[in-house]
Amino acid sequence: MSVIDQRQLELMDRYWNAANYLTVGQIYLQDNVLLKEPLRPEHIKPRLLGHWGTSPGLSFIYVHMNRLIQENNVSAIYLAGPGHGGPALVASAYLEGTYSEIYPEVSEDEKGLHRLFRQFSTPGGIPSHVSVPTPGSIHEGGELGYVLSHAFGAIMDNPDLLAVAVIGDGEAETAPLEGAWKSVKFINPARDGAVLPILHLNGYKIAGPTVLGREEDDQIRKLLEGHGYEVFFVEGDDPMTMHKAFAEVLDTCYGKIREYQIDARTNGFSKAPFWPAIVLRTPKGWTGPGEVDGTQVIGTFRAHQVPVSEVKQNASHLRILEQWLRSYKPEEIFDENGHLKPELAALAPQGELRMSANPAANGGSADLPALDVPEFRDYALAVTKPGTERYESTRQLGKFMRDIFTRNAKNKNFRLFCPDETNSNRLGNVFEVENRCSTGKLLSVDDHVTPDGRVLEVLSEHLCQGWLEGYLLTGRNGLFATYEAFAMVSASMTVQHAKWLQESLHLSWRKPIPSLNILLTSTCWRNDHNGFSHQGPGLIDIVLSKKGNVARIYLPPDANSLLSISDHCFRSHNYVNLIVIDKQPQLQWMSIEEAFEHCNRGLSIWKWASNDDQVEPDVVLACAGDVPTLETVAAAWWLRQHLPELKVRVVNVVDLMTLYPPAYHPHGLSNEAFVENFTEDKPVVFAFHGYQRAIHELIHGRPNTHRFHVRGFVEEGTTTTPFDMVVRNGMSRYHLCIEALKHAKRVRNLTPGLIAECEDLLVKHESYVRTNLEDMPEVRDWVWTD
Amino acid sequence: MSVIDQRQLELMDRYWNAANYLTVGQIYLQDNVLLKEPLRPEHIKPRLLGHWGTSPGLSFIYVHMNRLIQENNVSAIYLAGPGHGGPALVASAYLEGTYSEIYPEVSEDEKGLHRLFRQFSTPGGIPSHVSVPTPGSIHEGGELGYVLSHAFGAIMDNPDLLAVAVIGDGEAETAPLEGAWKSVKFINPARDGAVLPILHLNGYKIAGPTVLGREEDDQIRKLLEGHGYEVFFVEGDDPMTMHKAFAEVLDTCYGKIREYQIDARTNGFSKAPFWPAIVLRTPKGWTGPGEVDGTQVIGTFRAHQVPVSEVKQNASHLRILEQWLRSYKPEEIFDENGHLKPELAALAPQGELRMSANPAANGGSADLPALDVPEFRDYALAVTKPGTERYESTRQLGKFMRDIFTRNAKNKNFRLFCPDETNSNRLGNVFEVENRCSTGKLLSVDDHVTPDGRVLEVLSEHLCQGWLEGYLLTGRNGLFATYEAFAMVSASMTVQHAKWLQESLHLSWRKPIPSLNILLTSTCWRNDHNGFSHQGPGLIDIVLSKKGNVARIYLPPDANSLLSISDHCFRSHNYVNLIVIDKQPQLQWMSIEEAFEHCNRGLSIWKWASNDDQVEPDVVLACAGDVPTLETVAAAWWLRQHLPELKVRVVNVVDLMTLYPPAYHPHGLSNEAFVENFTEDKPVVFAFHGYQRAIHELIHGRPNTHRFHVRGFVEEGTTTTPFDMVVRNGMSRYHLCIEALKHAKRVRNLTPGLIAECEDLLVKHESYVRTNLEDMPEVRDWVWTD
Repeated sequence: MSVIDQRQLELMDRYWNAANYLTVGQIYLQDNVLLKEPLRPEHIKPRLLGHWGTSPGLSFIYVHMNRLIQENNVSAIYLAGPGHGGPALVASAYLEGTYSEIYPEVSEDEKGLHRLFRQFSTPGGIPSHVSVPTPGSIHEGGELGYVLSHAFGAIMDNPDLLAVAVIGDGEAETAPLEGAWKSVKFINPARDGAVLPILHLNGYKIAGPTVLGREEDDQIRKLLEGHGYEVFFVEGDDPMTMHKAFAEVLDTCYGKIREYQIDARTNGFSKAPFWPAIVLRTPKGWTGPGEVDGTQVIGTFRAHQVPVSEVKQNASHLRILEQWLRSYKPEEIFDENGHLKPELAALAPQGELRMSANPAANGGSADLPALDVPEFRDYALAVTKPGTERYESTRQLGKFMRDIFTRNAKNKNFRLFCPDETNSNRLGNVFEVENRCSTGKLLSVDDHVTPDGRVLEVLSEHLCQGWLEGYLLTGRNGLFATYEAFAMVSASMTVQHAKWLQESLHLSWRKPIPSLNILLTSTCWRNDHNGFSHQGPGLIDIVLSKKGNVARIYLPPDANSLLSISDHCFRSHNYVNLIVIDKQPQLQWMSIEEAFEHCNRGLSIWKWASNDDQVEPDVVLACAGDVPTLETVAAAWWLRQHLPELKVRVVNVVDLMTLYPPAYHPHGLSNEAFVENFTEDKPVVFAFHGYQRAIHELIHGRPNTHRFHVRGFVEEGTTTTPFDMVVRNGMSRYHLCIEALKHAKRVRNLTPGLIAECEDLLVKHESYVRTNLEDMPEVRDWVWTD
Repeated sequence: MSVIDQRQLELMDRYWNAANYLTVGQIYLQDNVLLKEPLRPEHIKPRLLGHWGTSPGLSFIYVHMNRLIQENNVSAIYLAGPGHGGPALVASAYLEGTYSEIYPEVSEDEKGLHRLFRQFSTPGGIPSHVSVPTPGSIHEGGELGYVLSHAFGAIMDNPDLLAVAVIGDGEAETAPLEGAWKSVKFINPARDGAVLPILHLNGYKIAGPTVLGREEDDQIRKLLEGHGYEVFFVEGDDPMTMHKAFAEVLDTCYGKIREYQIDARTNGFSKAPFWPAIVLRTPKGWTGPGEVDGTQVIGTFRAHQVPVSEVKQNASHLRILEQWLRSYKPEEIFDENGHLKPELAALAPQGELRMSANPAANGGSADLPALDVPEFRDYALAVTKPGTERYESTRQLGKFMRDIFTRNAKNKNFRLFCPDETNSNRLGNVFEVENRCSTGKLLSVDDHVTPDGRVLEVLSEHLCQGWLEGYLLTGRNGLFATYEAFAMVSASMTVQHAKWLQESLHLSWRKPIPSLNILLTSTCWRNDHNGFSHQGPGLIDIVLSKKGNVARIYLPPDANSLLSISDHCFRSHNYVNLIVIDKQPQLQWMSIEEAFEHCNRGLSIWKWASNDDQVEPDVVLACAGDVPTLETVAAAWWLRQHLPELKVRVVNVVDLMTLYPPAYHPHGLSNEAFVENFTEDKPVVFAFHGYQRAIHELIHGRPNTHRFHVRGFVEEGTTTTPFDMVVRNGMSRYHLCIEALKHAKRVRNLTPGLIAECEDLLVKHESYVRTNLEDMPEVRDWVWTD
């Protein structure tokens, strides 16, 4: 460990001053950026926005990390949980040159400084918090809570990466953050990198005190030790004392991290170390104005955003701001042209060692291999006749993923995340080659659990998804498999990830990242035994509202279509791919080539289930989702048996976005193709996996939408049978038949008797359903035969 | 503290056997319920469902709580976080008679036992987990994560209530649960009741080990001490030893709780105590089969659900089950008629002291007063002319709530929950009479923070909503106010609460509970300065998909309508009320009486903004939400100025559910009323606060829906101006004018010039928006004048 001399600490302090100066400048100045003249009202922005309170602490950590990187050649990324300290991170990226490389108009001179200040939190400029345009960011600090899970995901299988994760008082209160401390129990020093959490406490949120901000050190120490960390405190407000203390602690922490890594990499993993974590207590708004109008600002919630307001109007406030800015001695930071002085510039690392330029924070290094995906056809089920064999479709995906694990074992770039249901979701074939990961105590009765497994099971959707997002944002690949209903737990993360992707598309310097693949199994229709709380297809609605350029929803009805869709998803980039299919045995419909073609189109007519050869159908029976497909095919079969004159067409939709008008989603069918499938004006009875009325949202703008009669989930559920689920929600084969018979004009005079027959069947089945369905195998087993 | 004699412990052990017997019976038996005959395959259910693993531990705690209640007359409720142990809680409710009182068909005899067993996890029966039909439950155990936040919400302002919250290994891993431990920092022993958390560890989830299950005691002790608890461990597997140990620890914990309460209630609050918490380690599947087919079951993940399978088919398995059942000695539990033996029945508390019959778990005690809501008209803004004055609408709600606090101060039945934004949301008038709550260290610079405040600010949507739900489920009232975008963080809780309400409507014994009121402020349209991550109206879509009998969405456009809506929401029961309105200054439209009438109707024609007197309009401009209303009124004004021949009607929608067909939602307008507002076939240009296409989902089934042209949020956002937000999403006044002009048939030949003019204006404004909007006050300030 190096001894840090006073001269270096002083330089670091000047560098910190530079970052603080640039931060305050971004919040306040629109002119006179080097303070060459006395500050006047016209130099001040008309609207003062930004968050000063946390910023000096963030910059303090940054300059210290730079020293650590310089001295140790460590590859590090910086995740700023208190993301509203955006100007601090932008300042640091600017100081080390990355910002001007990416955004040449923000040049390293007076003009560039001017631009830097004006763009901040300004229309057409950059957000006030760390976001996609911030170099070095991997999606922290917008919606709070995910800085630790993203950091841990980033360093999984990234042995040489150090992720510094700064957690503010506020974020520390969120549930997802508190649930993420335990991530350290899944980190193996032999193969993973390290996260250095820095809990940065300044006592306040926007207005009130924070829980941890008011705790004694002893309490915080216990809490973090309880989570598995060794805790180091650095507390104070005198800059030079703090520089020395923090530098020493940082060296100590890095030394320990390397010691654990070297030991595990030399001698193999033995037990989970107590990884270091730092608690940094500094005043809120550190180095900012102490008092304004006789009221204390520094160290209080008043320093949270803009500590001195009305600077344009109030001369004494303007003086406070000028003193504050000049306290950083801009003339010692920049030369007269606005160039950073060379002795300060020398403090920043070079090239990809700059945290703002680390490739890990931009889709991974250039030599990171693409995922090696085997030929999906090799996992096909042999389907010679549709609807004759039942199989657990997701089991084939498990085999497919097993071999993805094998083929990428060398590259270590694939992981499966799941809340403890890998086996239950029929994906268990992966355990032929992979294990669950735990660095905790293992017992002989444990099943496929090792410290080097790449199947991550933890009963936290937030953690599963957060880790995967961190893994993806650093260029690797994976799948999050979960219960359909409980995917809503992390729905806001899906929203935010989609937003991140969408914004990144506007930035040519952002490398595409592998798609966020979410597999929903244990769906609403087949959670009959678990009851109403387990029945909810809501995530479809969430993803539907996201922008077409990043959102995809697939409803494969069988194993071979699931394989084809998964193959596509694993190879794709920059999407949120939502795949919905149940895990229970289900009838298989398509050969692998049929499935491939079907999935490529996104939807197609199932001729074998239809009888509208050479003529326009009287009615179209459309379906999306496995259970709706079964009911639809059964309904078509019943109608063909009972009323052969009725011309029925079955259309299966596997890519839900094909229904959107093409102007709205790139997968949207042309109106011509839409009409080829659904006709121009014939009634369409549509059985849909998700919430019933969402289809109307999709098809708006298509010809004659009023002819679409959708059956889907209408929030009816309980502990019952699969068949009762479709009955309760009005989507059973009988409901579909009745609906079809009601709307098919040409045969309407033929149908009253048949409708009555259907209604009888429904009543008959319903009475079974309500009383003793378990004794009625022909319903329980959903047997459907041609 | 009592000394518990051996005889009593032995009786308790028999009672525990009874609960375990009934649990295994529910999972396995459909006949021979008292084991009067040797067990035969036909006595076994055809489908074996349920979760044995956690059940014996849950019943163990239950019988010990009963003793505590009996000895101390304590009013307690039991929250079973491991909710899949449903049969255990049903068994206990049955043993103490509550179950038969509520469900007389499940009588206290052999016939009732038969019914009890058959109904479990059976179609038409009860769910396998604790749910609405389970007496004594306040919504724990379906979607995991909320047992602690619900428990803490339940005991707030409930000084005599003790909530025992059992947390399983699995739930302990969820983020919402980990984020809820700190709830204890908001509990004041002088005025609140107490939560006794029992962390019940058995080492496994469904298939894998759990993080805490594998931790050393020392680590867990630190973690919980760090959270603010004093930790007591009870570990082992020998029943009688465990009975003694647990009884002693429970007495100790209760003694401490009472000591803290009595001290604070006698001497006033001084500092937050370290509240007791218990860690109970028992084998998974305790007292169940040790081995099956030579493989260890007890103490492993194999005991999680059904530990012995294929009992119907496999004679040796059947023998294991029979031995297991007989190990509980049913003949010593029940008499030959299936009545519980009197010496066991005597162990249960009586009447409302039974945890399954505690009124707190069913909407609160009968003498709990209703919320005293002041006359909302007293907070009205004087609006004499629409659209002439700007005001922060939510400020009036703050004043209204201030007086709700005052009027209910004696009853202590109202709280406000918010992630640290009460002031920022302009609700700060509540601080005239109330404070933020914290039992932590306070500083002189703190603003309105005391240990007895009823404004709960914590930066966790999960905690805010979870506490409020617990508060409501026990019969009290409140509001959760939060950022619109980040309401998605706890969206799944909103889903689950709506499901709970919906199920409760089917159960006449469940008392109505005050509605879950969610106020979304800082909306997408006015998060211009915060950027894209802060712009998301997704919760509307979530609530739209919920059942009409429990879901309400209100979009009041100004202060007076907000008051009228809030008044209704505060008085209502059994709804999820979503209220969306921004906090920024906004034009005011309606006097209080106009607002009241408007809100009562749900939507109405704004004649003063229309020019279609006596004639059918050429176009209807509809709007829902504050910003859409502003743009719509501005568009109507512009059209009236430039093309007076065009007859324009403005319809404002405040109750979104009025658009649903009446068959789908009770608020749905009749088609006749719908046509009175929107005409039969005239074009409707609809400006909508939420995601654009959702309106099509609502209006499906209305006449001529293709004439509805909706503008709304299309997931376009960035750091910009309010006006640019509506431009980017195509919802600006100019967009609305262009759309209206395009579709209004009668004047189509007059309009090309006007459309071009509008397009020019749009381009002109857009160029401002993109470059230097901050210099253009007439756009920045959204001034609109008549």
